Amino acid sequence: MTERADEGLAFMLRYENVAWFEDGKVRILDRRVYPRKVEFVYCSNYREVIKALQDMVTQSAGPYTAAAMGMALAAYECRNLSEEKQIEYLTTAAYEISHARPTTVSRMELITGGCLTASKKALTLGKNVSDAIVEHTVKANNLRYGKVNLMAEHLVEMFPQNGSVMTQCFGETIVGMMLKVAKQQGKNIKIFCPETRPYFQGARLTATVCHEMGFDTTVITDNMPAYVMKKENVDVFTSAADAICMDGHIVNKVGTYQIAIAAKYTGIPYFVTGAPDKGHPTVDTVKIEMRDPDFVLQAMGVRTAADGLKGYYPAFDITPPELVSGVVTDTGIYTPYDLNSYFKDGNMGEFEMVI
Amino acid sequence: MTERADEGLAFMLRYENVAWFEDGKVRILDRRVYPRKVEFVYCSNYREVIKALQDMVTQSAGPYTAAAMGMALAAYECRNLSEEKQIEYLTTAAYEISHARPTTVSRMELITGGCLTASKKALTLGKNVSDAIVEHTVKANNLRYGKVNLMAEHLVEMFPQNGSVMTQCFGETIVGMMLKVAKQQGKNIKIFCPETRPYFQGARLTATVCHEMGFDTTVITDNMPAYVMKKENVDVFTSAADAICMDGHIVNKVGTYQIAIAAKYTGIPYFVTGAPDKGHPTVDTVKIEMRDPDFVLQAMGVRTAADGLKGYYPAFDITPPELVSGVVTDTGIYTPYDLNSYFKDGNMGEFEMVI
Repeated sequence: MTERADEGLAFMLRYENVAWFEDGKVRILDRRVYPRKVEFVYCSNYREVIKALQDMVTQSAGPYTAAAMGMALAAYECRNLSEEKQIEYLTTAAYEISHARPTTVSRMELITGGCLTASKKALTLGKNVSDAIVEHTVKANNLRYGKVNLMAEHLVEMFPQNGSVMTQCFGETIVGMMLKVAKQQGKNIKIFCPETRPYFQGARLTATVCHEMGFDTTVITDNMPAYVMKKENVDVFTSAADAICMDGHIVNKVGTYQIAIAAKYTGIPYFVTGAPDKGHPTVDTVKIEMRDPDFVLQAMGVRTAADGLKGYYPAFDITPPELVSGVVTDTGIYTPYDLNSYFKDGNMGEFEMVI
Repeated sequence: MTERADEGLAFMLRYENVAWFEDGKVRILDRRVYPRKVEFVYCSNYREVIKALQDMVTQSAGPYTAAAMGMALAAYECRNLSEEKQIEYLTTAAYEISHARPTTVSRMELITGGCLTASKKALTLGKNVSDAIVEHTVKANNLRYGKVNLMAEHLVEMFPQNGSVMTQCFGETIVGMMLKVAKQQGKNIKIFCPETRPYFQGARLTATVCHEMGFDTTVITDNMPAYVMKKENVDVFTSAADAICMDGHIVNKVGTYQIAIAAKYTGIPYFVTGAPDKGHPTVDTVKIEMRDPDFVLQAMGVRTAADGLKGYYPAFDITPPELVSGVVTDTGIYTPYDLNSYFKDGNMGEFEMVI
């Protein structure tokens, strides 16, 4: 796997950057079975990367790196074409990869758009385009990790010296950073991880990271957050987001809305991490992805419901600003009602970089 | 299986009264695997019935009939002892069976107490005690079904002509009756069933009953209720209860509290069915059963979390009266803040009968 600029972030990379381009293929850690099994999906062309994204091979921030690696693979596929044809091929790939799943198009366009700009620059300079995209991605990720580190510092300031935090779904970069910073600040935090049906990302992934980093970690089922908040005196609910609309609506893994309601009812703040998303001026621009309904009728591959029953599977839900205590960014915590302030000082968001 | 007094209730009995005493054994349908498999647990003495209750072989109202059948089995076990020793044996059995699980002791005492009274009467009359308990149970269940039928009528009045209802966990008697009455009243109701982790009673049992009775039924995961309520315009949330405290607190399957919070937030009424429980004058008398925490770390027998992680498994939670729109009883709907009114006209509750 390609060498990374920042060794200090290695603890996190095993969870996130296990999508990588090498030897004309993209390999992606199959998070659907991790940590029970460590298996990889290998993609030989960028459309297979799209399929892997659609099949939920990787989740949370994983798809952003996988998308960039898909661009590196697309560049490899078209390497023998004319420069003009390469740009055409890469432009199509950028469009298709960013549209792999409907809810994250705007954020994905920042990733693939960055790769496309890096490709054009490489072509102008006569450099290997795939290498240029990989190099660009390392830089972009490191820039993002730096921002997430700052987010984590602002977030952990909201934690008590001794207390407990409830998470939702995976959110690996910020979860890893949050734990690292909590350790640095000497905060003694217990973590409660709802399991996150139907894929169990909370039970399988978040809980594993928290446990491996030495935190007292408890897995609960998705019907328990409200009761656990009250009974176990949870101090803070926090999640990442798939989109933070400029009007303060939060799009994240289905279940976030319900836990945020419970948090408000039980008097616990909900902090969402991530930069606001200019691609979503209002929540009306969000399209919630509906996935295969049959998938909720099974658990870990075993059918739960009788034949003939219907499922229902929105991948995400929407939490309104009135349930959000603060949007935790790299430059501080903003009220969800004034997210324009974030961009006032020239901030570029979590996924943007100047190329 | 012993003949039942009321054939009209047969549709429901396959879900509930599949705990029965015959040939010196109690057989209980194993609801942990139903409907995927139809298997029975056979108990040769009443302590095995207690173990089956503790092991969640049957749930919802199933344990009440199983408890009575455990008493019939205890009577069979001690049939050759002196009358005095039989009463002693049955008194011990009644105590132990009613204390099988901590949260339902007060309701179970009504069941085993009734069986004990029936036993004493049979001994006085020189009748077969096991037969007398079975006969008593048929009568008690039919009396209860009559009350539940009335509850269902009051509940269904709260449904729109065309709309949708969200359930929680199984609650089989009232679910069956609710559907029967909804059909009779010509109400066109869609049902949303949260799956109810960790045992999936909603996905496996409630949804099966609803589907088999011809209703449009959709299974959702436990992190979806709030989003589905809002997105799909759910009209009513309803559940049964393991205890309805006289101060209006509702004890029911974990998750009920969270869905009730979501219902209140999204402006949907929550109706709980069942008679108030004099055995719980206030919520302070309720002991929430904590079950094996490791059970939440698996789904359908497959481990979800990594080794070394902790689970947390309260079997029930507590919903405060401010989240309860009405307690639906056989004699009408009461505010949770005035449950004493239910007993004013000589009502005896759902599980009581004069012997």
